[in-house]
Order: sequence, then structure tokens, then C-alpha cells
Amino acid sequence: MTVLNATHDPARRSWIDSANLPGADFPIQNLPFGAFERDGVARAGVAIGEHAVDLQALAGSGLLDAGSDAALACEATRDGTLNRLMAMPHRYASALRAALADLLKSDAPQRARVQQQTDALLPRIDSLALRLPCEVGDYTDFLTSLHHTERHGRYKGLADPLPPAFKSLPIAYHGRASSLRVSGGDVRRPHGQYRDANGQIVFGPAPALDFELELAAWIGQGNAFTQPIAVDDAAAHIFGYSLLNDWSAKSIQWFEQVLGPFLGKSFHSSVSPWIVTSEALAPFRKALAARASDDPPLMAHLHGARDQQEGGLHLELHAHLSTRHLREAGADAVRITHTHLDNLYWTFAQMVAHHTSNGCNLRPGDLLGSGTISGADDAARACITELTNAGRDPLRLPNGETRTALEDGDEIVLSARATKAGAVSIGFGECRGRIAPAFAFASGEAEAAA
Amino acid sequence: MTVLNATHDPARRSWIDSANLPGADFPIQNLPFGAFERDGVARAGVAIGEHAVDLQALAGSGLLDAGSDAALACEATRDGTLNRLMAMPHRYASALRAALADLLKSDAPQRARVQQQTDALLPRIDSLALRLPCEVGDYTDFLTSLHHTERHGRYKGLADPLPPAFKSLPIAYHGRASSLRVSGGDVRRPHGQYRDANGQIVFGPAPALDFELELAAWIGQGNAFTQPIAVDDAAAHIFGYSLLNDWSAKSIQWFEQVLGPFLGKSFHSSVSPWIVTSEALAPFRKALAARASDDPPLMAHLHGARDQQEGGLHLELHAHLSTRHLREAGADAVRITHTHLDNLYWTFAQMVAHHTSNGCNLRPGDLLGSGTISGADDAARACITELTNAGRDPLRLPNGETRTALEDGDEIVLSARATKAGAVSIGFGECRGRIAPAFAFASGEAEAAA
Repeated sequence: MTVLNATHDPARRSWIDSANLPGADFPIQNLPFGAFERDGVARAGVAIGEHAVDLQALAGSGLLDAGSDAALACEATRDGTLNRLMAMPHRYASALRAALADLLKSDAPQRARVQQQTDALLPRIDSLALRLPCEVGDYTDFLTSLHHTERHGRYKGLADPLPPAFKSLPIAYHGRASSLRVSGGDVRRPHGQYRDANGQIVFGPAPALDFELELAAWIGQGNAFTQPIAVDDAAAHIFGYSLLNDWSAKSIQWFEQVLGPFLGKSFHSSVSPWIVTSEALAPFRKALAARASDDPPLMAHLHGARDQQEGGLHLELHAHLSTRHLREAGADAVRITHTHLDNLYWTFAQMVAHHTSNGCNLRPGDLLGSGTISGADDAARACITELTNAGRDPLRLPNGETRTALEDGDEIVLSARATKAGAVSIGFGECRGRIAPAFAFASGEAEAAA
Repeated sequence: MTVLNATHDPARRSWIDSANLPGADFPIQNLPFGAFERDGVARAGVAIGEHAVDLQALAGSGLLDAGSDAALACEATRDGTLNRLMAMPHRYASALRAALADLLKSDAPQRARVQQQTDALLPRIDSLALRLPCEVGDYTDFLTSLHHTERHGRYKGLADPLPPAFKSLPIAYHGRASSLRVSGGDVRRPHGQYRDANGQIVFGPAPALDFELELAAWIGQGNAFTQPIAVDDAAAHIFGYSLLNDWSAKSIQWFEQVLGPFLGKSFHSSVSPWIVTSEALAPFRKALAARASDDPPLMAHLHGARDQQEGGLHLELHAHLSTRHLREAGADAVRITHTHLDNLYWTFAQMVAHHTSNGCNLRPGDLLGSGTISGADDAARACITELTNAGRDPLRLPNGETRTALEDGDEIVLSARATKAGAVSIGFGECRGRIAPAFAFASGEAEAAA
């Protein structure tokens, strides 16, 4: 059963005004972890409103009780990544969030002491170069939306659009860890081999770029090699969640895919910088919907009483698109996707249990993507391939532009919010990326037969 | 053009007798790099005969010129892994190998000084706990044997057993880095979901375990994100090679595979402990065979004049099987595979060029497996699935045992030798693993519907 504590108290406000604004992603009830560079040094931090607590500065501030769990948690981030903190039991990160909440709340006894060190302790987030929050040993991407999977099966003309294994296990593939990047900046259009309109195999800038809106879990404590994690123990191994944009070069993927996605994905994957902790999400847990009566029975190692009771989240997710023309005209980005985590057929606990069921070891900082979170509704289609019915019905923007794929200059921003009556709503920040034109290829742009 | 130097001199012998034995894997011309634990501390080393140079001891021995490239290379391994050395230009590892060859050759001027420190400097390999030679950021597995691919296509009953992309690009998938293990010890039979003989989906110990004989390249210097590596620059990015056994749980793989292999592989992958350097393999380089006239033209970014001239290796590879009964009877392991690197359709330089063609970044210590190195001949089938014609023709051992898959207690040993007239033959050591029975599953062995 989920336990709530003082950090969840909906009455709390912070003396940092931007944390109290309606719709703020990072109120005092959130306090997500991240990393950034400051004065040329990698540091870990905790977001509050439009600011980030610099944990290296905090460690030297004297504001934490020496030897306390909170101080030990803070010390564990000294190398500027969260890996060591993630490897520790939840109570350390929990103690640090509780200590920060006590320092940052409106009626904090130590408010004056903190405010004396504001410049060192609480830089504005927009002044920082954000980094990946940790080193990712392995990145796994799942395929857990039935609607996303069924639609793609229909586009391929399959008699049964759902793979036979879909309802028996959460389908997944190993992703590329080296090409994970934090939100922001350019997403360079990749070169690759694909079939052109005449069916000829060519090599050049990939024409069919897409986004995929996903939620991703960060592994905290790992498991020993050969020792599976039981589904109801999985929560103890998930440190928190971020947004993931699994950028896809569909033309490359369609041609290359024999043993799964490879170069069609590994040119760039974007994650939002702040890890919203499992603890902060506790008030938004919800029970799973009953399995359909004609679904195959759930195997015991994927069934957990606790997971059934609280494996879901009251979480809505969005994607916005802006184009160069829209920005030049001063127009807002257009919301193209509005979906819900309910649209996943499998829970993250089931993904963890399945992933480790063969003895595979997860390590602190590993990333598990949900797969594209598409729903049954048209508005809940979470990639352009689905939004355009595989290109048949182009996406029409308010200024008359149309899209069947992302063009150079197009920018996608993913966002998400957990909301429930009686709790202060929290957000995930944004996962942003803008398509940049392909570089000229060093071996010569024009490919000739050798 | 490959440059040979004094470390390749076939006339050289070592004062360490085991390095001069006929058929020794690690003569003074090889000097491969590895890592091990000694006195509870991770250290890097270089193999010579039945001994390993302890590079931590060497760094403190005064035997290397302070500030020399060799000394800097040695210092770079102080953390007990090779990652930092791999990230340096080839000349550092080359200088260290040359310095070691000068210390270990029969007529070494400093022979007496080295021999005074033999216990510290030159432990026997069999006294050491070997480790993975480096931290692997990402592991990629290719599918580059036409014969392996065609046979599997035929087993599936495909009209065209070769995927359309096979001759246009080296097909690959991302593997799991966390479950890579150094040669030796148990390979625990995994649990997983699969279809039983009645077509029912069940969860239990995987019945159809197989081995796959592969060669794997270790990446040295990486490439910057978005900056592809040209095929003829790839050699500068490959530090060396080891053997890889890509253990496969075929029953799991057949059921799960929608987006490529996942739990059917990630329970354990074994690599041989010693990295045979690209430099040591230089005498064994060979030109590629001409492409078949009906093959599609090779795209320019996969064609390199240097790669065409020396992208191959005079390298034979073997797999031996022993069973519990064979060992109890004191019988030798049975050679079940004898193949050659010629059986790959793509070179490692082409794999590197393809892998980075979309801008994906490789990092020092990344591992690229060749895929199963099966040839056209029956003897050159490099996994049990092929050796048994997908189970139709069981493998018959001299003692009357038969196999269509690996059973508990079965042990596979992979080995390889580079041989060419005029050069001292070098070996790779062994890649060994023994199947151990599945652990009882924590959630309950008997799977019930929930």
C-alpha cells in the first residue's frame, strides 16, 4: 500500500514563488532529481519552481545534518550524476527530498539561512546546461500500447495486426544507450539506406522522420545476475520517471528491420531532464482496469496484488508541434497528441518482472521506455505515423501547412501532468527537440556503385 | 597498408618457456590485453604464454621509461579496466606492447631485472580471477554470415530465405551489455515464456539452449555524435578482437521475437578474456574475395580500397562440446565446428561504417559481434540449430549421446587461431561456459492463471 508523508501535504507552499504558480510542473510536492553543468563542473540537482537546488553547493552549506540520510544522499551525488544515489535504498532520496521540502516551505525555520546563499544554492534552471541525470548502462524500449501496435499491424496489412505474444508478455528490444541525449537542441536528420518511391535501395538523408511519445522508468537499485525481480518488488527498483521521445527514421527502419530496430532509432533519443520520483507520484497511483474476458490469463510471475491495486497512474501526456513558419508568424505550437498512461497494456512493474525473468540484471541508471503511448481515440495517437493514418491523411496545421513526417525545423515538445482530486498536480517539465538538416556525408553525398 | 614492426618478428622467442611451445596461443608476437582481480583489486594485464604481466605492478617497477608512451599506456590502466587505454591513439598500446616484447624476449638486456620481480610482475594466468577487459557501454550483435542466415530462413520455410536487406547492409541489433560475462563458470539456464509441444504458451526453464560462435571487435577511440566513421578509417577505431559466445534460448526467442531478440539472449553472453590487438593481427590480414556478379553493387560508404585489400583475416575458429558423461569417462571434448572468418559477408570495417552512418556514436569499450560464423560446409555450421538441421538430425557424440540442444552440464569451448606462412601463429585463448540447471523461480515454479 502506498504510504504518503509530509512531502505530499497538499497544503504546503514554497517561499519560491514560481513553485506556487497554477500549473507549475515543479511545486514543492514534486522535487524531481536531475543534473547540469555549472562553472564547467557536472552537478546533480533538485528542481523547485523555476530553480534547481545545486546539491554540490547544498553539501557544503551546513544546512543538512551531518551523517543524516539526507546528507549521505547529497554526498552520493558528488560526481555530478545520480547513479550512486539511485543505487541506494529509497529512504536516502526520500530523506533528501524531505529535508529540501523543510528548507523550501513557506514557513521554513531556516528560510533566512537558505536565502543568504540563494545564488550558490538555487540557480535558475534556464541559466544551466542540463545533462542526462545519470550514466545509462542499458536502455530498453518496450511496445506496450495495444492501439499503437494494432494500428501498425493494420498499416502492414497483417491479417492479425497484434503479434501473438503481445498479450502474454511486454514485447521489448534493446535500445542504444550512447545516443540518448537530454531534452533540447538539435536532432540531426540521419543518413541511411531505404527504398525510394521506385523501390530502389538508396542511401541519403532519411525522409520519414517521426516522434514517439513515451514514458520511461529509471532503475534505482539493481538486481543480482540470475536473480529475477518479483512483480510486486519492482517498485523498490524504480527510482522515478521521465519523458522519452523515441525519434524514429521510419524509412530506414522499414528497410533494415530483421532483428528489430537499429539505425532507424540510434541516431538520437531524447529524455526530459528531471526524474519525477516514484515517491512524488505516490498520490497519483491507481488500480489497473480488469483484464478483458477474452484475454489470455496473466501468468503468475507477471501478476502482483500490489501492482493490480496501484500499477496505474493518473497521468496525462501531450505532444506539441511547432514549425519554422509557425514560429516566424509568432504562432503557438499546436497540440497534436493528448493521451493517458491508461493506454498501456502492461505496467512498469510487469516490464521489470519480465525483463529480469530470465535472470538479466538491471543496473542503477538503466532506462526502460514504455513504447509509444497511443490510445484508441484519434487525439491519443502518439506519433505522426498514426496521426496521419500512415501518411494517407496528412496532418493539417492552422496555418495551412501539412505534414506526413517531420521536416527540418520542426520541433516536438512532450509534456505530462499527474492530476488527482485532493493532491497538488505535478508535471514532468518538457522533452524538446528540433529537427536539423542532415550533415553532408563525408564519403560523398552521391552514392555510386563501387 | 598494414605496417609490420619488431613485435611481429617471427624469429623472436621469449625467456618465458610456455610462450614458445608449439601451438601456444600467446607467443611473444601476440601480447593481448585483459583484466583480472588480484589481492581483491582489479588490474589490467597482458598475456604471455601461461602468464600475465600485471600492469599495475609494471607501472611501479621502474622498468618503463617515465613519461614514455609505454609508461603512459600502462598508467592509463590504473583503474583496472582498459577503457582509458582504448580511448587513446593506437600508438600508446603499441608502445606498451613493444616495451613488453623488449623486456620478455630471450635476449632482453633487462631480463635479470624482470626475473627478480617475477612473482609481482608475472603471475600465472590460472592463478587469477579473470574479468571483462573493460566496461562495455553498448554491445551490438550483427548477422553477417550468409550461410547462417539462409539456413535459418529455410528452417522457417521462407520462400526467399535471405532477408532483402542482407546484401545491402550488415544487419544488426542492439544487445544487452549488463549480461556480458567473461569466459568461464556457469551459464544458468533461464526461465522464459515459450510454446510447448502442444502449442500452449508456458513459462519455465527454457528447453532449447544453443551456442553461437562469433568473433567480436572492441572499439578503441570512439566517434563524435553525428559524425560517421568512413569505412577506411574504421581500423583506427578497432582496438582488437575476442571470441564471443552468443548463448541463445531459442524457444524463448521464437515466441518473443517481434522487435528482435531480447530475453532469448540477455540471460548470458560470454566473451574470451584476452583482446588480441589489431596490431598483432596485422600479419594475418588478407584481401576480400570478389563480390558475386549477381550481388547488388556495394554502396560507396561501405566500400573502402584499404578494406577491400586487407579487410579479411587468416583466422580459423572452432567449437568443442563436452558433456557430463564424456568428462566422467575421461574423454576429450568433441570438436563440433570448424569454420573460417572468410564465411562473413561483411567486414568489421563495414560494420563500423554502417553502425555510425546515421551519426550513432561508438565509445571506447563498445563490443561488436560478427554474428554466428557459419560456412557452407557441414563442418562449418557454428550453432547446434544448424548442426542438427533444426533438430531433424540430432548430433551424435562418440559415446552414443545425442543432442538437439544443450543440456545441463554441457560445456562449450570456443577457440580461434590466426595462421599464415612466414608468421608465428597466434591464438585467442578460450571462451568457455557450462550450462547449469535453472534456479527455482521465486514467484513459484508452477505457473497458474491469475
